[in-house]
Amino acid sequence: MNSLSTLMTPACVIDDSKFQRNIQRMQAVAERDNLVLRPHVKTLKSLAAAERYAPSNGPITVSTLAEAEYFAAAGYDDILYAVGLVPNKYARVQALSERAGKFTVVLDSMAAVNALLAFAEKLEQPLQVMLEVDVDDHRAGLLPMSDALRECAKAIQATPKLHFRGVMTHAGGSYDCFTQQSRDAMALQECQLIAKAALRLHEAGINCELVSAGSTPTALANCNHKGINELRAGVYATFDCVMAGLGVCSFDDIAMSVLTSVIGHQTDKNWVIVDAGWMALSRDQGTASHAKDCGYGLVCDQYGKLLDGWYVSSTNQEHGIISHIDGKQPDASLFAYGNLLRILPIHACATAAQFSEYQVINEQGEIGEVWSRISGW
Amino acid sequence: MNSLSTLMTPACVIDDSKFQRNIQRMQAVAERDNLVLRPHVKTLKSLAAAERYAPSNGPITVSTLAEAEYFAAAGYDDILYAVGLVPNKYARVQALSERAGKFTVVLDSMAAVNALLAFAEKLEQPLQVMLEVDVDDHRAGLLPMSDALRECAKAIQATPKLHFRGVMTHAGGSYDCFTQQSRDAMALQECQLIAKAALRLHEAGINCELVSAGSTPTALANCNHKGINELRAGVYATFDCVMAGLGVCSFDDIAMSVLTSVIGHQTDKNWVIVDAGWMALSRDQGTASHAKDCGYGLVCDQYGKLLDGWYVSSTNQEHGIISHIDGKQPDASLFAYGNLLRILPIHACATAAQFSEYQVINEQGEIGEVWSRISGW
Repeated sequence: MNSLSTLMTPACVIDDSKFQRNIQRMQAVAERDNLVLRPHVKTLKSLAAAERYAPSNGPITVSTLAEAEYFAAAGYDDILYAVGLVPNKYARVQALSERAGKFTVVLDSMAAVNALLAFAEKLEQPLQVMLEVDVDDHRAGLLPMSDALRECAKAIQATPKLHFRGVMTHAGGSYDCFTQQSRDAMALQECQLIAKAALRLHEAGINCELVSAGSTPTALANCNHKGINELRAGVYATFDCVMAGLGVCSFDDIAMSVLTSVIGHQTDKNWVIVDAGWMALSRDQGTASHAKDCGYGLVCDQYGKLLDGWYVSSTNQEHGIISHIDGKQPDASLFAYGNLLRILPIHACATAAQFSEYQVINEQGEIGEVWSRISGW
Repeated sequence: MNSLSTLMTPACVIDDSKFQRNIQRMQAVAERDNLVLRPHVKTLKSLAAAERYAPSNGPITVSTLAEAEYFAAAGYDDILYAVGLVPNKYARVQALSERAGKFTVVLDSMAAVNALLAFAEKLEQPLQVMLEVDVDDHRAGLLPMSDALRECAKAIQATPKLHFRGVMTHAGGSYDCFTQQSRDAMALQECQLIAKAALRLHEAGINCELVSAGSTPTALANCNHKGINELRAGVYATFDCVMAGLGVCSFDDIAMSVLTSVIGHQTDKNWVIVDAGWMALSRDQGTASHAKDCGYGLVCDQYGKLLDGWYVSSTNQEHGIISHIDGKQPDASLFAYGNLLRILPIHACATAAQFSEYQVINEQGEIGEVWSRISGW
């Protein structure tokens, strides 16, 4: 098998043993709390990768219709498209629904429900629909105690062209929870509020087959997830510096890295210049608000060993500048021209999106499989 | 011809008349100052787009070997790969050099020169090489007055396997020049220092066929570009909010936008939620340091009219949150569910990279051509 030194840089690397360890950690939570795990495949968008954490025909979450089509073509049947639907996507949604019986869309307003009702007249089989609930003032969703929630559910249930499947939420606010206690509280809030939404619908005679919630930080919080029956999360399989910065994982758990070469130096500034710029690492600076700002990524040697204090402090399109947090001089042998380094991503979803494939390595650093991914909408 | 309302969102749109106006502006500078214009094709990475601003067989700059191969396959012969070369790219560089006779690589250290010299033994025809010069303490490059610059050039010139073509620089520091005066000064500095580097080599008996410099802000500065014979720039063809924020163009000059749909609202927060998140807009927040922070992009109506004060204040992967800089309530008709909006990109290179094609519209908003692009390395 080949080593990383046979690759052209930059390249995206997955450490398979860390990847599998992370996956097992989330699966253990779902088993412990007796929940269906519906992994979000948006981080890697790869069938080969999904074989590890989202087995064929198991339920998945997707972020684009392109993902839905890619996974449906491979036999996935229960696909939740977790972005509020608009009419310009109806034609593809109809085709998806005919292909994958449990393909499910999400709505969060009467305007969206009314638009779909008008379209649904022409459907030959019912389209699966869920309502999104806002539990953390973070993004989209209906409030659990709102009249609108009940009105939307009633309108969906009233037509045989739509099948109301339940309620879902995503406590993205957990990404701002820097303590275990705050994440535990957010997980409890997420479960309690989505359960309350389901209860209010139940009281109105509307059954929720699915009560679905999750984000990586809340899924991995100290919480028994009472009140939900389905857990959703995505970035846990690789983790990243944002998750490590929150304390959800350690930096050593991060299973993704960008392989890069030292292309030069500016010795008077103690800079090492590499061929991973923002095109490879992404522009995500999600740790800028953290106690430890990892810039555009933390630096490891080619074997994945974290080099304490070294980070990508600046990027251009195809150039990254590595410097030490205390301005130290780079070690001449470690950072020699042509040397390989590996950069831990700030946000794995954003970094992965910059690549069309992943190099999967074993514990000896040998490349086994190469996983392709899709992009676009 | 179709209008934008026939598209699925998000989509990347190029306003062709603005695009051509921007291109003409840069071409006029090159003609005025009697310079060869070597456009950087890294922003759009599209042959169809390049037909507008980098005619076939004209000189171009690229940021990846994938771009070089894509343009070489279409007949481009004079291609400058403007990222410091490392050995893991030699095999592809050799193949490119055999295909495109003036394919040119860039080095900036004796370590890089020595590595290439060792490889060059096996070349059957000379590889074109330039040296990168640092004129603004911004990124890579040899200092103009350094001994290393002369040593590198001498070593390159000493072997028939390499052909020394000249010196190049990119005053990326111009992106921090917020006044006309400072951009004019930076342009002068860029030209004077690269000219000095060329002169020092000339004094050592080494001829620079090319003395190449440029960045969009310095190329468009009040400067006669004396001392160089080649001008390089890229983002000028579309411009973006970073360029407008600097004052290099107006916001109305920006020829790229991301078409998006209103997917929902949070009325108590005065938020409009759209289906362009960071996956469509990129994570670039390059105006965060500007007097006017445009967030993840400024908001226009579907006809491209800027909606004063409205910007994308926050993004998740497939969700964007639009709010008003003064917290205003969104106009119900303008921001109704399902409505189309267009977002001006913060950084066109980063936004364009998120798409595989561009929808090209005329002044009536009708879609003419669809230009495909490449990605990857």
